Amino acid sequence: MEGKQIMDYFEESIDMHLRLKGKIEVGTKVKVDNKDDLSIAYMPGVAQPCIEIKDDPEMAYRLTIKANTVAVVSDGSAVPDLGNIGGLASLPVMEGKAVLFKEFGDVDAFPICLDTQDVDEIVETVKNIAPSFGGINLEDISAPRCYEIERRLQEELDIPVFHDDRHGTAVVVGAAVINAFRLINKPLRLVRAVISGTGAAGNAVLKMLRLLGISDILICDSKGIISMDRLSEFDENKMELLELSNKDGITGTLADAVIGRDLFIGVSAPDILDASMVKSMMDDCVILAMANPEPEIDPTIAKEAGARIVGTGRPDIPNQINNVLAFPGIFKGALNARAKKITDEMKLAATHALADLVSEDELKEDYVIPPVFKEGLADAVAASVARAWVIDNET
Amino acid sequence: MEGKQIMDYFEESIDMHLRLKGKIEVGTKVKVDNKDDLSIAYMPGVAQPCIEIKDDPEMAYRLTIKANTVAVVSDGSAVPDLGNIGGLASLPVMEGKAVLFKEFGDVDAFPICLDTQDVDEIVETVKNIAPSFGGINLEDISAPRCYEIERRLQEELDIPVFHDDRHGTAVVVGAAVINAFRLINKPLRLVRAVISGTGAAGNAVLKMLRLLGISDILICDSKGIISMDRLSEFDENKMELLELSNKDGITGTLADAVIGRDLFIGVSAPDILDASMVKSMMDDCVILAMANPEPEIDPTIAKEAGARIVGTGRPDIPNQINNVLAFPGIFKGALNARAKKITDEMKLAATHALADLVSEDELKEDYVIPPVFKEGLADAVAASVARAWVIDNET
Repeated sequence: MEGKQIMDYFEESIDMHLRLKGKIEVGTKVKVDNKDDLSIAYMPGVAQPCIEIKDDPEMAYRLTIKANTVAVVSDGSAVPDLGNIGGLASLPVMEGKAVLFKEFGDVDAFPICLDTQDVDEIVETVKNIAPSFGGINLEDISAPRCYEIERRLQEELDIPVFHDDRHGTAVVVGAAVINAFRLINKPLRLVRAVISGTGAAGNAVLKMLRLLGISDILICDSKGIISMDRLSEFDENKMELLELSNKDGITGTLADAVIGRDLFIGVSAPDILDASMVKSMMDDCVILAMANPEPEIDPTIAKEAGARIVGTGRPDIPNQINNVLAFPGIFKGALNARAKKITDEMKLAATHALADLVSEDELKEDYVIPPVFKEGLADAVAASVARAWVIDNET
Repeated sequence: MEGKQIMDYFEESIDMHLRLKGKIEVGTKVKVDNKDDLSIAYMPGVAQPCIEIKDDPEMAYRLTIKANTVAVVSDGSAVPDLGNIGGLASLPVMEGKAVLFKEFGDVDAFPICLDTQDVDEIVETVKNIAPSFGGINLEDISAPRCYEIERRLQEELDIPVFHDDRHGTAVVVGAAVINAFRLINKPLRLVRAVISGTGAAGNAVLKMLRLLGISDILICDSKGIISMDRLSEFDENKMELLELSNKDGITGTLADAVIGRDLFIGVSAPDILDASMVKSMMDDCVILAMANPEPEIDPTIAKEAGARIVGTGRPDIPNQINNVLAFPGIFKGALNARAKKITDEMKLAATHALADLVSEDELKEDYVIPPVFKEGLADAVAASVARAWVIDNET
C-alpha cells in the first residue's frame, strides 16, 4: 500500500473516532414509554425469565443476549503493526472487530479489553464474565501465551472459544489453497508446502494444511527449518510444530526449504522471500504472503519469478486473505447451532464453504478467494459450520 | 399490586423475552460498505487512534466507547424477589437495566453477569475488564459482600463505581424527604427519623439522611433498634450503623423506635409497620415504605392512621420511589464530567436536582417526587452531578 494512502486512512480514522466517540453503541430492542413497558422489560415481569433460566440454564439461549453475543477479548499484547500496546489502547481495534461482527455476520459483539497480561488472570477473568456471552473471540494476544489461554478456556467453558488470529487466518488460507490447486489441477495430497512463521497463525495454518490432506510440510522460523538438529532450542510450541511437520528430516534455511515446493505460506515478516527463491520452487507454484504491513514478497516480483497464484493481506490487490471472510460466519454458525466449541470439523466446513463460494466459472489466478463484500457469504459459512456441529453431535 | 396483574406481567415478559432473545443489541455507528470503510474503521487506519491512546490514556474518552459506556455488573446474589439466583439467571434483569440506562439516560450499558460470588474474584475480574468502560454499576450483590466490593473497586479504579441498590435508592429517598418536609414546612435538621432495614440500601439511606442534615436517626434490623446494648451481636456493618445513628442511646423494638418520629423509611420486609405504630409517630409524619414485593405497610392503612405523606416502590400508586429516577442521570453526569468517582457531593446534587423537579405549584401530598417519565429528568440530574464534580475538581 502506498505510504500516502495509509497516512490518509490514519487521518480519516482519527477524524471518525473523534466524531463518534465509540464505533458501537448499545441499542435497545424494547421501548420503555410507560409503566407497563417498564413492568414487562424490568421489574416485576423480568423475574419470570430469571426463574426459567435458574431452573434450566439452557433457557438463557432462548431468553437473553447469550443467544447471539460474542466477547471480543484482548490484552493488547500483539496488535498488528503496533505490538504490545496493552488492553486500553487496543480498544479501537476491538470496537472495529465488533463492527465487523455485526456488519458482516449480524452477530452482537462487545469488546472486552483487559487490564492484565497474566495468563492465569486472563483465564479466570474470561471464565468469570462468560455467562453474558454465547462465544469468546480471542484477539491480538501474543504467542505462546495465547495457546494456553485458548486451551484452558475451551476446556473450562461450554461456549465456543476461538482465537481468530490463528484459526480465522487458517480457515481463509485453507480456502485459498483448495481453490489454487483446484485451478492448477493438483491433488492436495501431492502438494508440498512450506510455511514461514511459527507464531500464532503459523501454528494454526500448519494444522489446517494437514486437515486438508497435505502431509509434506516444512515450517520455518527466522533461523530456518524446524528440524530435529535444532531440538535443544525448542520450546513446547516448536516441539509440537516439529511433530506435525518435516517428515523427511530436512534441515537448512528458508531458502533451502522452498526448493521444489508447490506452496509458500507466509505469516512472518516483510521481504524475506526473493525472486531466486521463488524460481527454486515448482513451476505453477502458489504464494500466500500475509506479513504486515508489507508481504513476504512483492506480488509483482513473485509473479515475474514464476508464481502462478499470489495472495496477500492487502485489500488493494487480488486474492486478499482477510479474516473477515471467516469469523462472522463461523461464530454465527456456532451460535445458531448452540455449539459448545468450534471443532476441527467446523473449521474445515468453513474453509470448504468459502472455497465453494468461488464457482468454476469465476475461478482464475486472480480470484481464488471470494471478495469480502460478496453477498450471502457469512450466511453460507454459518450454515456449513452449524451443520458440521450438528452432524457430530446428533443424539 | 394485584396478584393477577403481576401474573400478567410475568406472562407478557416471557413472551417478549422469547421473541427478542435479548433486549439489547450491539449497534454500529459506522457503515462498512467498501474497502475504504474497512480501512478507516479497522486496519490499517485504526492504528492511529490506538497510538494516541497509548501515548495518552485519557484519549480513550475522546476516541472510544469508554466515553459513554457502563458495565452493569452482578453476581446475581441478591436479585429482588428472587434472592441468590446466580449470575446467569440474573441476565434478564441486567439486560433490563441496560435498557433503562439507554432509554432514560442515553448511556450505553452492557450486562456483565458473573460466574463467581467470591469477593476477591469479583474485584479482580471487574478491575481486569475496566478498560472498556467509563463506569461500573454494581447491581443486586448481597450485603455485606457488596460493601467491600464497592470500596475496593473504587479505591483501585479511576472510573466511577456505584452500587445502585444502595446509592440510587438513597438519592431518590433523599429527594422525597426534602420535598415531603418542604410541604410539611419542617426544617430537616429538626426531623427525627427511623429507618427499618440494615441491608445495603438501609446503610446508604442512613448516610444520605445525614448528608441532608438530619442528625436524629434510629435504624432497626429485624430484632429492633441498633443500640449499644446489642454490641456483642454486631458485625463491622452494624458497628458502623451504630456509630452513625442513635445519638441518644435508645433501645427497644421497631415499635419503640417509631414513637414520636417524623419520618419512617422502610427498606426491609412487608407488613412490619401497623396502624398503631403509625399513630405513635408525630402528626403529619412521612412514611416511605419500599419493601418488595409488598411495602412495610399498606399505604391506605398508613394514611388512615395519620401519615400525611406516603411513598412506596409500587408504580401503581403515587410517590413511587424508583431508582430509574437516579442512576441514568447520575452516570450520564459522571461520564460527561469524566469523573473518577461518584462523591457524596454528586449524590447530594442528584438528590437536590430530583427534588427541584417538583415545582412549588406541583408539590402536594401525592406528588413529592417527580414521575419516572418526566421529560428532561435525567438531563437535569446529569447537569447537577457533573457540576458537583467539576466544582470540587477545578484546578
